[in-house]
Amino acid sequence: MSSSSDQWGDLASCSEAAAKEVTGNSEPEDIEKAKNAVFVESCSIPEGTPTVKGYDWNKGVNYHALLETYKFSGFQATNFGLAVEQIRSMLECRQVPLTLDQLDDLEDDDFIRRRTNCTIFLSFTSNMSSCGVRDTIRFLVQHRMVDCLVTTAGGVEEDLIKCLAPTYLGEFNLDGRKLREKGLNRIGNLLVPNENYCLFEDWVMPRLDLMLHEQKQSGTLWTPSKMVAKLGEEIDNPDSICYWAARNKIPVFSPAITDGSMGDMLFFHSHRSPGLVLDIIQDVRRINTMAIKAKHSGMIIIGGGLIKHHVCNANLMRNGADFSVFINTASEFDGSDSGARPDEAISWGKIRKESRPVKIYGEASLVFPLLVGETFAKYHHASKTKAESEV
Amino acid sequence: MSSSSDQWGDLASCSEAAAKEVTGNSEPEDIEKAKNAVFVESCSIPEGTPTVKGYDWNKGVNYHALLETYKFSGFQATNFGLAVEQIRSMLECRQVPLTLDQLDDLEDDDFIRRRTNCTIFLSFTSNMSSCGVRDTIRFLVQHRMVDCLVTTAGGVEEDLIKCLAPTYLGEFNLDGRKLREKGLNRIGNLLVPNENYCLFEDWVMPRLDLMLHEQKQSGTLWTPSKMVAKLGEEIDNPDSICYWAARNKIPVFSPAITDGSMGDMLFFHSHRSPGLVLDIIQDVRRINTMAIKAKHSGMIIIGGGLIKHHVCNANLMRNGADFSVFINTASEFDGSDSGARPDEAISWGKIRKESRPVKIYGEASLVFPLLVGETFAKYHHASKTKAESEV
Amino acid sequence: MSSSSDQWGDLASCSEAAAKEVTGNSEPEDIEKAKNAVFVESCSIPEGTPTVKGYDWNKGVNYHALLETYKFSGFQATNFGLAVEQIRSMLECRQVPLTLDQLDDLEDDDFIRRRTNCTIFLSFTSNMSSCGVRDTIRFLVQHRMVDCLVTTAGGVEEDLIKCLAPTYLGEFNLDGRKLREKGLNRIGNLLVPNENYCLFEDWVMPRLDLMLHEQKQSGTLWTPSKMVAKLGEEIDNPDSICYWAARNKIPVFSPAITDGSMGDMLFFHSHRSPGLVLDIIQDVRRINTMAIKAKHSGMIIIGGGLIKHHVCNANLMRNGADFSVFINTASEFDGSDSGARPDEAISWGKIRKESRPVKIYGEASLVFPLLVGETFAKYHHASKTKAESEV
Amino acid sequence: MSSSSDQWGDLASCSEAAAKEVTGNSEPEDIEKAKNAVFVESCSIPEGTPTVKGYDWNKGVNYHALLETYKFSGFQATNFGLAVEQIRSMLECRQVPLTLDQLDDLEDDDFIRRRTNCTIFLSFTSNMSSCGVRDTIRFLVQHRMVDCLVTTAGGVEEDLIKCLAPTYLGEFNLDGRKLREKGLNRIGNLLVPNENYCLFEDWVMPRLDLMLHEQKQSGTLWTPSKMVAKLGEEIDNPDSICYWAARNKIPVFSPAITDGSMGDMLFFHSHRSPGLVLDIIQDVRRINTMAIKAKHSGMIIIGGGLIKHHVCNANLMRNGADFSVFINTASEFDGSDSGARPDEAISWGKIRKESRPVKIYGEASLVFPLLVGETFAKYHHASKTKAESEV
Repeated sequence: MSSSSDQWGDLASCSEAAAKEVTGNSEPEDIEKAKNAVFVESCSIPEGTPTVKGYDWNKGVNYHALLETYKFSGFQATNFGLAVEQIRSMLECRQVPLTLDQLDDLEDDDFIRRRTNCTIFLSFTSNMSSCGVRDTIRFLVQHRMVDCLVTTAGGVEEDLIKCLAPTYLGEFNLDGRKLREKGLNRIGNLLVPNENYCLFEDWVMPRLDLMLHEQKQSGTLWTPSKMVAKLGEEIDNPDSICYWAARNKIPVFSPAITDGSMGDMLFFHSHRSPGLVLDIIQDVRRINTMAIKAKHSGMIIIGGGLIKHHVCNANLMRNGADFSVFINTASEFDGSDSGARPDEAISWGKIRKESRPVKIYGEASLVFPLLVGETFAKYHHASKTKAESEV
Repeated sequence: MSSSSDQWGDLASCSEAAAKEVTGNSEPEDIEKAKNAVFVESCSIPEGTPTVKGYDWNKGVNYHALLETYKFSGFQATNFGLAVEQIRSMLECRQVPLTLDQLDDLEDDDFIRRRTNCTIFLSFTSNMSSCGVRDTIRFLVQHRMVDCLVTTAGGVEEDLIKCLAPTYLGEFNLDGRKLREKGLNRIGNLLVPNENYCLFEDWVMPRLDLMLHEQKQSGTLWTPSKMVAKLGEEIDNPDSICYWAARNKIPVFSPAITDGSMGDMLFFHSHRSPGLVLDIIQDVRRINTMAIKAKHSGMIIIGGGLIKHHVCNANLMRNGADFSVFINTASEFDGSDSGARPDEAISWGKIRKESRPVKIYGEASLVFPLLVGETFAKYHHASKTKAESEV
Repeated sequence: MSSSSDQWGDLASCSEAAAKEVTGNSEPEDIEKAKNAVFVESCSIPEGTPTVKGYDWNKGVNYHALLETYKFSGFQATNFGLAVEQIRSMLECRQVPLTLDQLDDLEDDDFIRRRTNCTIFLSFTSNMSSCGVRDTIRFLVQHRMVDCLVTTAGGVEEDLIKCLAPTYLGEFNLDGRKLREKGLNRIGNLLVPNENYCLFEDWVMPRLDLMLHEQKQSGTLWTPSKMVAKLGEEIDNPDSICYWAARNKIPVFSPAITDGSMGDMLFFHSHRSPGLVLDIIQDVRRINTMAIKAKHSGMIIIGGGLIKHHVCNANLMRNGADFSVFINTASEFDGSDSGARPDEAISWGKIRKESRPVKIYGEASLVFPLLVGETFAKYHHASKTKAESEV
Repeated sequence: MSSSSDQWGDLASCSEAAAKEVTGNSEPEDIEKAKNAVFVESCSIPEGTPTVKGYDWNKGVNYHALLETYKFSGFQATNFGLAVEQIRSMLECRQVPLTLDQLDDLEDDDFIRRRTNCTIFLSFTSNMSSCGVRDTIRFLVQHRMVDCLVTTAGGVEEDLIKCLAPTYLGEFNLDGRKLREKGLNRIGNLLVPNENYCLFEDWVMPRLDLMLHEQKQSGTLWTPSKMVAKLGEEIDNPDSICYWAARNKIPVFSPAITDGSMGDMLFFHSHRSPGLVLDIIQDVRRINTMAIKAKHSGMIIIGGGLIKHHVCNANLMRNGADFSVFINTASEFDGSDSGARPDEAISWGKIRKESRPVKIYGEASLVFPLLVGETFAKYHHASKTKAESEV
């Protein structure tokens, strides 16, 4: 130590003081108690409880293999894995043929005629039509993999408007004032030129005229779902959810369809050609009947608010859904239905007590396509391949 | 160092090593650069920029004084302070009498006849009726301090049902399966016995009969707002929002009123006595007209989803609201309208470019009563006192 | 009907069709089942379960009365009410004098000498020092109403820097690039001129010299808590939390005190005058000992991350805290300790099994001052008044 | 209309009334104004602005192709796409060889000797070690694809403990009281038997003895990073992050390493064998020096709190990072550093003004493995293949 001791010797006493402090003010008995608290013994974990394990990238980049490990990764990856299982259960249930007995109530109703053993309700907020998830939803509707859609006004109109003109990528923090001056409407990090809504007016107004005409001529009592089916028939673009929903007779419920650009159009139309009536009672009847008639039911709910509650409420009519997947970013602490965990829906009878519902806390543009990849898309392409190989 | 040096002398060399490490591997030039990055110079802050300061509790417990400091506290306390200012601006604007010229379009419409210089739209999600905030909203409606309400089915029915039987405090993590077995429905940390909905059925069914009768007899085309007004007239309980809305001719819009217990009742009623029609076009017309006719407009929006968008969309008809307060727990990152900042609404023309809208990120049961305390309630009691003193 | 029938007769048949639809596709048996699901019977609610009720503003603006109703309002208002009860329990427990027997381990340690029957740990993130909540925390420290502080580097340095120059109000969406050019650092909607950090350097460097000198001369082994105490002694400003913590011998733990401007200073100082050592083992010993020696303990934790876990972990040493209040905006779904509910801490033994911990989901600048108003501040002023009246 | 007109004729007049309402109370001029607000004209969108488009599942299940579309999908999918670009930029930058000139400051320091053209800082919260993401991080460390790790105490100890005994899958809502009785600690939906911490004690205590011995013998001034390196050398398990970090000389910084089980052990050890010192100043020096010496730097930050700020603060020393990716679930409204957008870090000089930092709002167990799949893993396997093919 020699020379350095002159310079640094002070630290020796500092460390000495430290050691003194350490032994000072807590007697062994206290420490023993602390140890008892820290080192309580564990019961053994039940046999078969899965251990946590992630993907080993040394095996190469294999996303399906990766996603298969998610269930064992914890947190929302686990919920993703459980959601995959819920949807696979829907799909398996769906493949069980209905018996003759179950088919005896066949009637002149599209849904009942084409009912499967598991009716799948898919609901989504308008931003899902605005963003690229629209193409994933359209795929499900195109191939009749879901039976009932519920969305908001925006969920319908954004889908239709995209057939007329594109939506653009923007940024979350573009200045609203400047955008308004440019006539660019922002939806998160997307931009929709206001021009698109003008195009929509041009397209939709004659269709509203047709509807009013039909009401007057044939006594049609229009409802939101009938209106969306009509617009879906009219739109001539296979990129559209509504296009396929109409062609595949999959109803699109949107009880508050006046809350959006569609409402603006109905408003202006009512000034130009008054008289159109849009009834929501026939629609609640229709969705409730679908739920009641469903042999089994599955709910896939992307987002919160109206579209979440509406599907759950319909499933109350059958004493709860059998399979449930929620994807949203809301939490329960504010007492909102949006943030409510599936367990809250069980208390209401909207989800069956014996079922295993799953909520993924996550943003759907990230999560939903992956979920479809592991379930619907895989099934679709597998059965297509199977069908082809059997030819 | 003497005796300790034997025991602790080792630390001297350790410290020496430390000092050596320290001087070792970064030459002065690098350090100079780091200093330049860390200690960049500041421009002077604009004259008059407020400094951050909290409340001094040594002055005693004075909540009004505390809340007055919130604006200068930062984060959401600042937003609270700014929201107080927005609402005070609404109230001040409201006190300016309309001129004769502005009154020349008086017609046989309750809203237009009683319009003030600032039309206040208050919208709220159903959980606000379920929790104690209902009493705060009722106060505003009772004293005609707001002009238009927008809510969901639950926002209406929870208010009415509370007139029939109470809602109870529960806990967020009560088990849904056990609750279902007991017939107790959970809303966050609240419990509503299912019995209450049975009572609601008993109460509402005869009213639906009356509505159907009136439709057949007088050709009334029912809309959600007319229906809520009817139910509000029928409910005989001054604790109710709907009770006062009906008596004070304040419309309650709820375009998706079928999405809730109300929808269940309409569904069952449609099986017992088919024929009732509930049109949503007349209602969008009505709310849009209110916005168009408003000399100025203020929006107070508690929660997200339909009720948020519907008020904003109506205000698009007048090229944007003048004053805006949002209270909710959602964030913008998922591209939802619920989480969108007011700035997004500016891009759409739903809020005026020159206005100063405020969003408070917070749970409304905590925040909204305080906001009312600093604004509406204070004004109400002040003007009452003034009126009394002038007698 | 006469003339109108010509024009509108079409709607008669439409309504007829509607009624037909209604009676059509759901047989009575199904409807009966649906009714059974919707109208399940309820068990009776346990006697004494509180009903939900809000404040009646007709009684006037009385914030204390309002906040007393929060417990019965539901959602986070209820949690606020429960948190008030937790803190009142801490304060009541604190007033029980320690017995002679309990005092027998009196030693030459400030904490132990001045220990009360309930040791209160208050921890907070740095933004609480940046915003106006600092003044509320300072009040608690000034009047010795808490016994132990835990914060981050920023929690210390922001408090000290405010003694040198003010923090300003800004906005959340000011442009970062422009701010950097102006040398203005943003913290949420606050602005801190970079100049303030230069002033801090000028102030703190000589104190680090003193510390190094003392290390060399007296062999002091510095720890973060000793360093904060030293800086608190040196700062000559009674607005400061550290000022009062030093004077009232309340330790401030900050194990990662190098993670902030303080770390920058220690870094630069180590280049100028190498050799200073900052040990964290003595500090974990000190906080753990406080927890072990506490007769009872209460935790008030504002924010997440390190400061949340550190207080909880110390309380594990005594097999859990007796009273606990968390205030933060995080949710549990991501498996973070920040978002973990108190129930997770119970599983670890960090909160006692028999206690009733509360988490308020909310932003602290809104919530914490109100919580202090209903608890500490009220107690302080009541006891002051009592003391005065007894003179 | 005949017979039905008797029954339904009432609706004809209802509709008539409806039409009358419609034409009633808004004159054309108002409607014109509303139209002007709704149909403002748009400027043209800048040439080349990407349009929103999702993946077409009709093309088959190809996850790489899917993830390539994310950038054009909007919302967080877009941010995912941008984050992929940021990390690819880091990797490309990294492949540029350092020039002789840049290498002239080579010294006896592992980092500097092995420095690349882009130093990558990876930081993560403890839950990332607890969940399956640990295996992804380990892959990055194993193959030296990152240069510096920052984590919390839990981030280190959970990694080490998993080498001794497994972590299990549980559920978020398991009852904390019952778990404590069973000695099962919950981390979100994971369970760690308390037994594991007893095993950790057995393993770590002798290592702490060794450290104390080395301090006394060789004067080592221990720091958290040195301690983690020591433990990493000792752990004999290639599943461990610390194992590879030690072998690959990648420092693991954890300034508050006393805040966790590691702190418990240091505490108990200090009672058994007092004297160990753990200095944090040398560590802040070390991480800051890494940042200063970095030719370019990239930050990948998973989670919030200490680990987020610490990497950013180190990068302030070099006037900001060049590439930045944040993944977390926090939002900015509470003024926390955890929730702060990258733009806030720009104002502080922690991220370069000219860079394009990205924040993904999402839960990391879902997001981070995918991000690695599209970047590090792809590069690793591509270069391996290339290397092999060149043999």
